[in-house]
Amino acid sequence: MTPSSTARLYIVGVGPGDPELLTLKAARVIASVPVVAFFAKRGKAGRARSIVAGWIKVDTIEVRLEYPFTTEVPVRDPRYALELGKFYECAAAEIARRLDSGCDVALLCEGDPFLYGSSPHVLDRLEGSYSIEVVPGVTGMSGCWARASLPLVHGDDVLTVLPGTLDEDRLVERLCSCDAVVIIKVGRNFPKICSAVTRSGLIGRAIYVERGTMEGERVVPLEQMDAQAAPYFSLILIPGRQRAR
Amino acid sequence: MTPSSTARLYIVGVGPGDPELLTLKAARVIASVPVVAFFAKRGKAGRARSIVAGWIKVDTIEVRLEYPFTTEVPVRDPRYALELGKFYECAAAEIARRLDSGCDVALLCEGDPFLYGSSPHVLDRLEGSYSIEVVPGVTGMSGCWARASLPLVHGDDVLTVLPGTLDEDRLVERLCSCDAVVIIKVGRNFPKICSAVTRSGLIGRAIYVERGTMEGERVVPLEQMDAQAAPYFSLILIPGRQRAR
Repeated sequence: MTPSSTARLYIVGVGPGDPELLTLKAARVIASVPVVAFFAKRGKAGRARSIVAGWIKVDTIEVRLEYPFTTEVPVRDPRYALELGKFYECAAAEIARRLDSGCDVALLCEGDPFLYGSSPHVLDRLEGSYSIEVVPGVTGMSGCWARASLPLVHGDDVLTVLPGTLDEDRLVERLCSCDAVVIIKVGRNFPKICSAVTRSGLIGRAIYVERGTMEGERVVPLEQMDAQAAPYFSLILIPGRQRAR
Repeated sequence: MTPSSTARLYIVGVGPGDPELLTLKAARVIASVPVVAFFAKRGKAGRARSIVAGWIKVDTIEVRLEYPFTTEVPVRDPRYALELGKFYECAAAEIARRLDSGCDVALLCEGDPFLYGSSPHVLDRLEGSYSIEVVPGVTGMSGCWARASLPLVHGDDVLTVLPGTLDEDRLVERLCSCDAVVIIKVGRNFPKICSAVTRSGLIGRAIYVERGTMEGERVVPLEQMDAQAAPYFSLILIPGRQRAR
């Protein structure tokens, strides 16, 4: 396919939360495009948009892409994939409409766009039909290990990023064969993750980071935490076994 | 220990190579400190320094920390650990000397400071004695997958970052149990890595990225590459199995 419009879609990572951890390129793109689009939960401002609020001009058109649900429908419920598929279809169509009218669009993404974000769902639907440029961002995990002052890997350590949505036995299996680990998608999976980390014998090395680089940040050894539900913006860091020296 | 100086060491990630992928915070810090320090190979300008050249003032003091060797001494040679240990000791002492004189120092690091960089060796030696702040950066792998327009992970995919320095059987073992993979430290390990990826049955999904976000960038399916030595600034990306839709 040849691009059907000369306008360009920028898929822009806005970093882990601190507005100063935006890249120069992201700031330039956001300040120059006529349209910014962003995902948001129902009734919320949209985290990616909040991070870059200072770079959006008064005459910028804002396209809010509101998820039909977040955690209300379980992932294994057939409605989940069906409804989210429809939602991404509409989101892509809405962005395409702006591109077709000749407007460049910046789709804002928390962290880095390609590390467990929603933007690949839009990319899949528009790639080949439009000019698309991805602007990488500082990931949430980089933000968290920086704030914890905790280098995760040394030498030949393997780094594994584990979604906390995996079932407990699968988590334990992975944890037992890992050097350094980051556990993401913590939220309501927190009690299960704590149990898996304990069963793997790694609880003494694990650090819990909540709202890394943001207001209300907490960095706490995991074993000091109550195994209750943690907020979505939390990660668990388990450094590798090799020493830096 | 209480900090022995009021000056602060900033350990600053400068991103994957494109100077515009510097964060606003990194730019501010680099432009404001009286001293910048950076690692460099013998006879080279220092890549991290080159990326931020536009932000260093004419009166900034530059501390060049030159590696005694890079690949001339094999990692398993006893001289390797011994000589590098001495080198990091001197580098930390040099930075400490500037901090003791009351000057803030920015230690420049390619990509993100804590993803396989040299800065943890300095951190280990100065932590507790000085005020230290880590400024995370965009990683080389984020830069590469953005340029390849290749989301690595979807849904519950596990992401594994494998150093190409591991031996071939260990690489195969890891590759066979992985969803999405990034292979780093390619360079002279390239023929071994190609063999491991082929043995794992993943060669058809692997993408080779050289000099991602920089001049001379190349994005090529791995199976189209000659299995000869690749430059150090290359990565191999293998996306996960799940589809975005």
